[in-house]
Amino acid sequence: MKIPSFESDYNNGAHPDVLRHLVETNSEQSASYGYDLWSERARTKIREACDCPHADIFFLTGGTQANATVIDALLRPYQAVLAVETAHINVHESGAVEASGHKVIALPSHEGRMKASDLQAYLQRFFADPTWEHMAVPGMVYVTMPTELGTIYNKKELEAIHDVCQHHQIPLYIDGARLAYGLMAEGCNIDLPWLAHHCEAFYIGGTKCGALCGEAVVFPQWTIDNSQCTMTPRGFFTHVKAHGALLAKSRVAGVQFDALFTDGLYFRIGRYAIGMAMKLREIFLSKGYEMRPSLTNQQFVVLENAQMKALMQHVLFETWEPIDEQHTLCRFVTSWATTDEDLNVLEGSL
Amino acid sequence: MKIPSFESDYNNGAHPDVLRHLVETNSEQSASYGYDLWSERARTKIREACDCPHADIFFLTGGTQANATVIDALLRPYQAVLAVETAHINVHESGAVEASGHKVIALPSHEGRMKASDLQAYLQRFFADPTWEHMAVPGMVYVTMPTELGTIYNKKELEAIHDVCQHHQIPLYIDGARLAYGLMAEGCNIDLPWLAHHCEAFYIGGTKCGALCGEAVVFPQWTIDNSQCTMTPRGFFTHVKAHGALLAKSRVAGVQFDALFTDGLYFRIGRYAIGMAMKLREIFLSKGYEMRPSLTNQQFVVLENAQMKALMQHVLFETWEPIDEQHTLCRFVTSWATTDEDLNVLEGSL
Amino acid sequence: MKIPSFESDYNNGAHPDVLRHLVETNSEQSASYGYDLWSERARTKIREACDCPHADIFFLTGGTQANATVIDALLRPYQAVLAVETAHINVHESGAVEASGHKVIALPSHEGRMKASDLQAYLQRFFADPTWEHMAVPGMVYVTMPTELGTIYNKKELEAIHDVCQHHQIPLYIDGARLAYGLMAEGCNIDLPWLAHHCEAFYIGGTKCGALCGEAVVFPQWTIDNSQCTMTPRGFFTHVKAHGALLAKSRVAGVQFDALFTDGLYFRIGRYAIGMAMKLREIFLSKGYEMRPSLTNQQFVVLENAQMKALMQHVLFETWEPIDEQHTLCRFVTSWATTDEDLNVLEGSL
Amino acid sequence: MKIPSFESDYNNGAHPDVLRHLVETNSEQSASYGYDLWSERARTKIREACDCPHADIFFLTGGTQANATVIDALLRPYQAVLAVETAHINVHESGAVEASGHKVIALPSHEGRMKASDLQAYLQRFFADPTWEHMAVPGMVYVTMPTELGTIYNKKELEAIHDVCQHHQIPLYIDGARLAYGLMAEGCNIDLPWLAHHCEAFYIGGTKCGALCGEAVVFPQWTIDNSQCTMTPRGFFTHVKAHGALLAKSRVAGVQFDALFTDGLYFRIGRYAIGMAMKLREIFLSKGYEMRPSLTNQQFVVLENAQMKALMQHVLFETWEPIDEQHTLCRFVTSWATTDEDLNVLEGSL
Repeated sequence: MKIPSFESDYNNGAHPDVLRHLVETNSEQSASYGYDLWSERARTKIREACDCPHADIFFLTGGTQANATVIDALLRPYQAVLAVETAHINVHESGAVEASGHKVIALPSHEGRMKASDLQAYLQRFFADPTWEHMAVPGMVYVTMPTELGTIYNKKELEAIHDVCQHHQIPLYIDGARLAYGLMAEGCNIDLPWLAHHCEAFYIGGTKCGALCGEAVVFPQWTIDNSQCTMTPRGFFTHVKAHGALLAKSRVAGVQFDALFTDGLYFRIGRYAIGMAMKLREIFLSKGYEMRPSLTNQQFVVLENAQMKALMQHVLFETWEPIDEQHTLCRFVTSWATTDEDLNVLEGSL
Repeated sequence: MKIPSFESDYNNGAHPDVLRHLVETNSEQSASYGYDLWSERARTKIREACDCPHADIFFLTGGTQANATVIDALLRPYQAVLAVETAHINVHESGAVEASGHKVIALPSHEGRMKASDLQAYLQRFFADPTWEHMAVPGMVYVTMPTELGTIYNKKELEAIHDVCQHHQIPLYIDGARLAYGLMAEGCNIDLPWLAHHCEAFYIGGTKCGALCGEAVVFPQWTIDNSQCTMTPRGFFTHVKAHGALLAKSRVAGVQFDALFTDGLYFRIGRYAIGMAMKLREIFLSKGYEMRPSLTNQQFVVLENAQMKALMQHVLFETWEPIDEQHTLCRFVTSWATTDEDLNVLEGSL
Repeated sequence: MKIPSFESDYNNGAHPDVLRHLVETNSEQSASYGYDLWSERARTKIREACDCPHADIFFLTGGTQANATVIDALLRPYQAVLAVETAHINVHESGAVEASGHKVIALPSHEGRMKASDLQAYLQRFFADPTWEHMAVPGMVYVTMPTELGTIYNKKELEAIHDVCQHHQIPLYIDGARLAYGLMAEGCNIDLPWLAHHCEAFYIGGTKCGALCGEAVVFPQWTIDNSQCTMTPRGFFTHVKAHGALLAKSRVAGVQFDALFTDGLYFRIGRYAIGMAMKLREIFLSKGYEMRPSLTNQQFVVLENAQMKALMQHVLFETWEPIDEQHTLCRFVTSWATTDEDLNVLEGSL
Repeated sequence: MKIPSFESDYNNGAHPDVLRHLVETNSEQSASYGYDLWSERARTKIREACDCPHADIFFLTGGTQANATVIDALLRPYQAVLAVETAHINVHESGAVEASGHKVIALPSHEGRMKASDLQAYLQRFFADPTWEHMAVPGMVYVTMPTELGTIYNKKELEAIHDVCQHHQIPLYIDGARLAYGLMAEGCNIDLPWLAHHCEAFYIGGTKCGALCGEAVVFPQWTIDNSQCTMTPRGFFTHVKAHGALLAKSRVAGVQFDALFTDGLYFRIGRYAIGMAMKLREIFLSKGYEMRPSLTNQQFVVLENAQMKALMQHVLFETWEPIDEQHTLCRFVTSWATTDEDLNVLEGSL
């Protein structure tokens, strides 16, 4: 019998519609290196979904790769990226940003979120320091939406961060590895066009949202009164290749994003997984478990250690971090592949 | 009507058997980051195919990525990699090797091949130079099999190169982006186990040999008389992630390589494409065209420019380089997807 | 009239004995790139002073350069260096360590010092984390002696740090930009031989301790029972040049270190500046000023802002950081060039 | 008895006037990190000597360091620098340019010089290649004046190179490690203002032209009709520090350049050494030796091997490269320290 897995949103295959599109298009021949016809179709659909008719879009294969490649393109060699302590680039990317030469400056994390006031205070203090030219100079800001801890930003919070960035003339880059789950979270008042118009670059995560692989890096290139406000870094195509991130058979990403942005599949996947996550949350809460706040498909539960071990016999999940000698914070993740049956097994095992 | 394409071996989809395996396994859940069960199965099969029971195998997504990642792992920061002038890393990788800090030292190319005697002469001259410590120090050798020009090495040639490497105690790394076509070429006396035992690292190309994406980096770790002769670089897993090259849903590569190394599919794909390439070659030769020597799936033909343009209306192919004012060297590539019908259209169009 | 300067220990010229040696040797010709005869003499004297007869010694020109070069040589590309939050490499080196590809992991600072217990706790937690292979792996430890805040380590503290390093088989590297002032501090129970035998690499700062420029990087290569315990990184000479840190006219550093290690000049410079610093400290304390603990040539005083501005008319010093709206922490630094006259002016101006 | 040395122009001390200025200024205190008063004076004098009133000038310590730092500042990460095969950055800098991430593309060397026609042909072919975006993109041009082989450019040649650069909108950077000897060579029709107005960056070498250490990097920022034509890279001060190239006691370089640009000392040093080099050349030529063309302070002579060994007993010089089994090309270098007595010993030993 199959043990239900809540380990991650990257331990299942592709969403059936994505897979079907891979199968349907397999026998066609097309150009490569991003010039295939599905990548072009996917770009058109993403531009529409973002309401950014001039957006430049590049398909890469993974989140760490997308982050390192974009950050290295947006910064000058002596510049650093600002992110919260718990940010993926600061913790779980094996130093990939530093490997391309840039310091990650860590700001306080508020349940995974950056606060505009922290950012503003840091930048003000930094440039007021008479020795600032001897330090790695903040050259951009990185946030994740939703955050690594399952929390989300609202419009006001993200706009405030963007305003600070614009005041200091540094770009804001948003890591959307799980963007579908962020935008579809209950209470999220941000949609894709709003997001695209409040940053200088972001990526739409595929791997964790229904694809086998693939992340769509978007330079929104939005305009105000016909004048261009954001730009794609010069030579980005070659830069992507120099980072080892250019797909020869780019169709593998193009076909999948073409499917994900057809009939709102990307958002439906987000909504479905959120629905399952809320049911899962309800199961735990109704039985009196302590949970961390999270509106997205990652749910964090405090389990007593003995019970945690017992539960592992019935369902799969990840330990996140020790709380104290007796308790551990555990992560349960839903995806398009999570079933009511899975939730029943979980409920029956508690 | 579909225009036959001989542009490349990466402008078609996956081989049907590979695609089928992706479909069959899609609904199963498994671990990620290389620990999925298909990656493990693929590793077992590749170890057997290489006759290297202790080989360490990592699945990456592209050739440039594999090269930059492996080379950066095998070298110390001040060391350089030796390759021929026409080598992929020296020409068509956007400076990815240099981007991770290492010089590519170019040796003469003999129809794409390195000569052991050139290598030996270079190393001897280098270390005899009293200023050698002021120069980037050669720390490894890179060759491609087959080469970028479609030629192959025979045992004697490759063994001679490996002997020079061993004499200077530097590793030999083989780029096998099109390895299937090299090993299956008529007259090739090298097989996979022999190759694996005559280098310190190599990769088995998937993207250009029937997969949608994926390259299998192999550290063969062969032994002689029970003592270990080659080693996997320390911390290579983390190093791969730091290069942005670690797949979250590693199954996408694992499943494909599991299929490619089941019932010899990888070699059958090579053999089939070679067969079609030889037919294609025969078509050109029988009509009196001048061709470059090539035993593999890339065939290079000299076309008169007006005729080249006319032919482009009927079949797709790539221009390689100008020969003179009137002639251009053109590249025709076959793959698992090339059909007799394609060849007939080509023949009828000449 | 000259305004006394307590701004730094790098705003005066060379110690007269150092300058004299530069003048005396100027007309001699000698080899370059570290092979000049004064560099060789300086090496012999430093080896004796360290009681490390096999030490490898390289002369570089600056502290940031020495740190970036040594750290990059000791780490593999995916590895990080551990240092305290206030460490020079984490704050005031413009991201030079990251520029060569390595993350700086910040541990808590205890008045500038690292605690062995913090280090041990970090490493234990790190390797206990099931996701550690996805993070930049700690590959060495960096401490400063004395620290950026003027404090020093004692034997017990430094030995405890070294023990943790040895337990985890990672090297300990000591930044001795102001080493003379640390070793000569009252109450310091560490001498140069002890230091050299409790780390795998360190540098003896010249620029801030009497030279015009120059830092002596030492790989002590100490042995126990005739077996080698520490090693110089392979190819370090070439590595230094690849970091742009190799002096052509190496005599400029060699001559200065030859002078600094003749008749204990280096230590006398340290002792003299410490003496002046203690007098300066006494002046402030006797007048009731609040001071940070510091046994070395950097003294930190809390000044009321209006008084600070007034004092700036009479003596030069640096503001360090704001304490509150009304007060600022200020830094006063002594050197070989500080005179009793300077102190008198200071005292008269308070 | 002292053996005369023609080994290099960096195996003697500082020119007496430079040394005197170091001594005279030693007891003064001044700011650091480039803000000392001598650096400021030297800048003023260099701006005048270049006829570039807005030039930005930075003092670094060595040539390899200056090259790697400037090149990394002028290029984007995916860009390469064009230089001739024999260029210092391509041969004798231990891969320092590649270590900061950039490929060196080698063009043919014409006795050390680049030809504008080669450059133009390369760039035209490069951008005509349909795969150019897959290659490291040429982003700047590097030439040395005088070249590593002792030859020089004339106005017409350098202007032609600069025109090609401007046509392709890429900067020209001139390595002037031995600039004094180039500008003062007989027949050189280029002076410092002309040079400064025909490139976007260059450095004035101190180490090999009379200083103990120090190179002055100049961004000339020249204007035409009041509009700015060249620019200093943004954040260059911090960039210099991130390359480990910022001097704390910047006075060491500032004082020396202040001396070098007082009363034309820099040019007098060049002229004197050239005079001695021409006498040395005459000695060899009059005795029938074969010499390479060189107008500067480096002279290359073909010596029969047995005689070469005999001569080494009487004067010091460097072997450059083997010519054939019996002959070696040898290098003899003059400097401010070369005396008529040295030449007499040489003449007497032939």
